[in-house]
Amino acid sequence: MPGELNEDTVIISDQKEGTQIYNKGNFGYPMSGGGLELDLIEATFLVESERLQVTKDGVPMSFAEMFNHSSTQYDRFDIAYLVYRDMRSRGFVVKAESGHFDLSVFPRGSVMSNSRPMYLVRAVSERDVLELDVFSKEVAHTESKGKKLLYGVVDEEGDLTYYHMSSRDPRGRSLHSSSKYAAEGRLIGERVLITEESHIEYLGKKGFYGKMMGNILQLSLIESCFIMEMGDLNVTTQSGEEMTPEKMIELGVKTQEEFELRLDAFRDMRKRGMVVKTGFKYGAHFRVYEGSPDTDHAKYLVHSVPGDKMMMWPEISRTVRLSGGVKKEILFCRAGEPREYLEFKWFRP
Amino acid sequence: MPGELNEDTVIISDQKEGTQIYNKGNFGYPMSGGGLELDLIEATFLVESERLQVTKDGVPMSFAEMFNHSSTQYDRFDIAYLVYRDMRSRGFVVKAESGHFDLSVFPRGSVMSNSRPMYLVRAVSERDVLELDVFSKEVAHTESKGKKLLYGVVDEEGDLTYYHMSSRDPRGRSLHSSSKYAAEGRLIGERVLITEESHIEYLGKKGFYGKMMGNILQLSLIESCFIMEMGDLNVTTQSGEEMTPEKMIELGVKTQEEFELRLDAFRDMRKRGMVVKTGFKYGAHFRVYEGSPDTDHAKYLVHSVPGDKMMMWPEISRTVRLSGGVKKEILFCRAGEPREYLEFKWFRP
Repeated sequence: MPGELNEDTVIISDQKEGTQIYNKGNFGYPMSGGGLELDLIEATFLVESERLQVTKDGVPMSFAEMFNHSSTQYDRFDIAYLVYRDMRSRGFVVKAESGHFDLSVFPRGSVMSNSRPMYLVRAVSERDVLELDVFSKEVAHTESKGKKLLYGVVDEEGDLTYYHMSSRDPRGRSLHSSSKYAAEGRLIGERVLITEESHIEYLGKKGFYGKMMGNILQLSLIESCFIMEMGDLNVTTQSGEEMTPEKMIELGVKTQEEFELRLDAFRDMRKRGMVVKTGFKYGAHFRVYEGSPDTDHAKYLVHSVPGDKMMMWPEISRTVRLSGGVKKEILFCRAGEPREYLEFKWFRP
Repeated sequence: MPGELNEDTVIISDQKEGTQIYNKGNFGYPMSGGGLELDLIEATFLVESERLQVTKDGVPMSFAEMFNHSSTQYDRFDIAYLVYRDMRSRGFVVKAESGHFDLSVFPRGSVMSNSRPMYLVRAVSERDVLELDVFSKEVAHTESKGKKLLYGVVDEEGDLTYYHMSSRDPRGRSLHSSSKYAAEGRLIGERVLITEESHIEYLGKKGFYGKMMGNILQLSLIESCFIMEMGDLNVTTQSGEEMTPEKMIELGVKTQEEFELRLDAFRDMRKRGMVVKTGFKYGAHFRVYEGSPDTDHAKYLVHSVPGDKMMMWPEISRTVRLSGGVKKEILFCRAGEPREYLEFKWFRP
């Protein structure tokens, strides 16, 4: 005896069939008077996998008809369904949720009543936007409950990519230590050049700032701004004008993209003892070392993003993909107060 | 006897020293009356590498002084110099140019008078923008002369990355062949579902469109638009409304990013016989097959960009980096008329 469609649920009245469906995969919700109630996502999946026949007014429904019907009942049913069926096909017990998350995923073979979800999953389309502020709250909330937050991203073709997010608190061993005398630098183009040997020793060798060109140390604008703010660098222009940190920032904003956004993250990471270098070759804002760049490999690629930024999934996919090939952890630094570091990782459930 | 600085050149009057500098690396330009004239980039490099002393009014100049002086004489001297010294340190003979290119690079050990440049190089900062229209003309121009166009991109720290660009004419073996009867599809969310077996056979199996979900074929909006334009698909909504190609495009534009831009490239590539799938997992617009996606690997990752687009180098770096890990060729499709395919490759000179 099949299940009968009833607007937004399917009822299996037959006790034996209901019990079997419930016991083999934890589908549905046992009803107090006997029988089993399935939600539409479960029923559609059982029809697709030919484990259940559903009738409407006694007439059997095809998978396409079930899918169509469910889509009229629920907004974005297609997205939730594609993630649901993917998780189910991986052997997990999955339950549709309403509220902050779309799906709860339980361990394989578990009985829901005696297990807690492994993952809380949001099912999204690759075309959805991710508001970073909202998102970072979600991460914190899930972590405080000891659960894993996954995003299941459905691409144009219905393929799934999972991302696992967590908050991080990266630290390094190279704290900036101030010098007695400020170094002298000359601004040329978008570089500050240091020629005095003791200054090169202090900034370049000890501080891991800049890069040598012959016997000259070149500092980037962003490095120069930070060291000036620390009071350890004076900069003059070709024409002898003295620069202030404010004027340097102005120059950076005028000549470079996202200068203040990057400076915000640079400053914070340097204060955390990390050595921060450009990530240009890796397609991210920064590559970041916990200790000396001469002996360590960069541990992180960091991309600085504004707190109110709406991120698109293709952008996240691109950035996470980058980190895969180079064995570095990718962090998004949410700039401004409170500054936060969020890790996005590919995840195979 | 050293060289003497003379505003924007350095003159080596001593015949023997001049000849030696000229013969060992093709530096400078022999003067008609004897002696050698060096441009500032050459002279600065020779001072940095301690092969020449330069004096100004009889007083020796340090490398830093030479660099500073040259920077006052030439706009963006620092960028050109960093590329020049990198190419020189790789053993190439390099000449500064004025005009379309910054540097001509000749084979190692060559004497300029009997050799043609291997590369024409533009020296740019990672902060520069690249106007695609201007750029594609440059590529065509260099190729017509049988030369290689390189961009030497100087990052914040003065490190170099080289890109080689060329124009491409990609083709595939899977031309769209029209059917006698248009397939029927149902629009659900951002997907069009095909349930009729013969339609699935024609579009999915033969045409390599869409992806199966159970026994339903799902087409993406972009695929659907194209097949509708070919006259081989009718689409109706859940409420029974008939869609036109125009309405479908409208829906795509409303719900997805860069829809028309992507459709422009999709349409062209399909007409070139290639099978085009989303590149979401690779962080590009498309992954593209020359033949069947069931048996071939995707050969290209394609990113569609508007012709008037100002591209930033970090964006290019990111996209090219992506293709490295997955052994695919990365093409930028300049959308609109005339459509062009440009390949960007990392290059190690």
